[in-house]
Amino acid sequence: MLDTAIIGTGPAGLSAAINLKLHDKSVVWFGSAHYSDKVEKSEKIANYPGMGYITGAELNARFADHARELGLTVEDRMVTNIMPAGDHFMLLAENEVYEAKTVLLATGVVSARTFAGETELLGRGVSYCATCDGFLHRGKTIAVFCAAPRYEHEVTYLANLAAKVYLYTPYKDCAVDAPNVEKIAPIRAVTGTERLSAVTLFDGTEIAVDALFCLRNAVAPTTLLPSLAVDGAHIVVDRAQQTSIPGCFAAGDCTGRPYQLAKAVGEGNVAAHSILEYLAEK
Amino acid sequence: MLDTAIIGTGPAGLSAAINLKLHDKSVVWFGSAHYSDKVEKSEKIANYPGMGYITGAELNARFADHARELGLTVEDRMVTNIMPAGDHFMLLAENEVYEAKTVLLATGVVSARTFAGETELLGRGVSYCATCDGFLHRGKTIAVFCAAPRYEHEVTYLANLAAKVYLYTPYKDCAVDAPNVEKIAPIRAVTGTERLSAVTLFDGTEIAVDALFCLRNAVAPTTLLPSLAVDGAHIVVDRAQQTSIPGCFAAGDCTGRPYQLAKAVGEGNVAAHSILEYLAEK
Repeated sequence: MLDTAIIGTGPAGLSAAINLKLHDKSVVWFGSAHYSDKVEKSEKIANYPGMGYITGAELNARFADHARELGLTVEDRMVTNIMPAGDHFMLLAENEVYEAKTVLLATGVVSARTFAGETELLGRGVSYCATCDGFLHRGKTIAVFCAAPRYEHEVTYLANLAAKVYLYTPYKDCAVDAPNVEKIAPIRAVTGTERLSAVTLFDGTEIAVDALFCLRNAVAPTTLLPSLAVDGAHIVVDRAQQTSIPGCFAAGDCTGRPYQLAKAVGEGNVAAHSILEYLAEK
Repeated sequence: MLDTAIIGTGPAGLSAAINLKLHDKSVVWFGSAHYSDKVEKSEKIANYPGMGYITGAELNARFADHARELGLTVEDRMVTNIMPAGDHFMLLAENEVYEAKTVLLATGVVSARTFAGETELLGRGVSYCATCDGFLHRGKTIAVFCAAPRYEHEVTYLANLAAKVYLYTPYKDCAVDAPNVEKIAPIRAVTGTERLSAVTLFDGTEIAVDALFCLRNAVAPTTLLPSLAVDGAHIVVDRAQQTSIPGCFAAGDCTGRPYQLAKAVGEGNVAAHSILEYLAEK
């Protein structure tokens, strides 16, 4: 049984991981080996005290250095479900189950990127995990939303299984090259009654599909943990970063504005200290 | 009329000052030209994300560099009183009055360092400001608590006025050298009914004095702003860092545990953004 599972490798997750590691806690840290996309893509950051003017890429590299210096490792798996189980939590990450006494959600803010109807049809044709659910759609027609180049290997994996793949990427120069993959315009909504039956594009086109795979690095918090109290797109926390579920904490952009690096770092620190207190009381 | 007065040059004050400066707000920033004593004295810091292992002195120097790079300047004056004045605040700092639409308290946590009876006798023999109140005690016998070498010039100033100075310093190698200055053991309490009449030492000695000057870089928040809601030693704030007084915000150790650099930086950032919102609504 692990002490903590941290979900997210942005500044909040990193700040928490550093503090828990320094206190010798056993931690599984889910996220991207690239750490923070959002930091990486920032042209210039001027308000992280002590760094002066720094590019996002440089700061993200320093974050990686810091994690490496402390011997932290990232589990590059997508967590798709968290189940409270009495005094601990069970987490499902690409068909592997993890157990931890506490959970820290540092997932960033994602709601803006959810397609209309997506949450309602999750598990009924909408999937976040190619390796988990891909085999269910062997020989079928599917749609795929690929948020970043690093998920392209999953698109290729799906293309090898499915008869036909309609692919939407919000970036240019997608390297996926398979005869059964057809690029489509931006997806607006997913539709279906019992199960997903089609995706609708912003240009009005409706494409009949059996499934939609959304490949992006974040999942809406209530998708992960349906009983979690939220306020719109944000997880409700107190000043100790405790959520509505005992043992479950949250930090960073997922807890609300301002969406700021320094805030995320601060909240990750506070969450780690709250987790230490919670574990000590157990 | 200034937009904001920030009190405190620790990580919380710095983080707020950086953000307000980047948003072109007019700010007076009170504190020490040495920035953070607490950071400076930390032997090693490992949990400020992106810095790896760093000495406190090195990090404090980087804070100073960052402030300099943005053109921030510190007003090295002690604020001794803040008065809410309708839609703005008046601040008294060593006989100068400043007016600002908003105030940020980033004063650190100080209560542990208050002598028994000190708060009760403030203004009735207890003073925090040598240059403000020293002349009241010309030719008298006074006690002085000098918290750090950088206040020694104030001790010398008082020694030139008073007949006799009993001096307590919590550090070694005090450089004050005047014939009427006598070093004493640690002060435990101040006593007096209408006015201060004596200081009591930890060794039991009672010394009759007319005044006690406490020279340290922090003043208890309710001393500064008596109407402020506090919880023990901490200022009560919400998640936006708003205190019980509209337009007055607080960040860093003064708002509660954990007493952590990253938390202070995060709260300073959030407070600055709350101040920007408050100013925009005005």
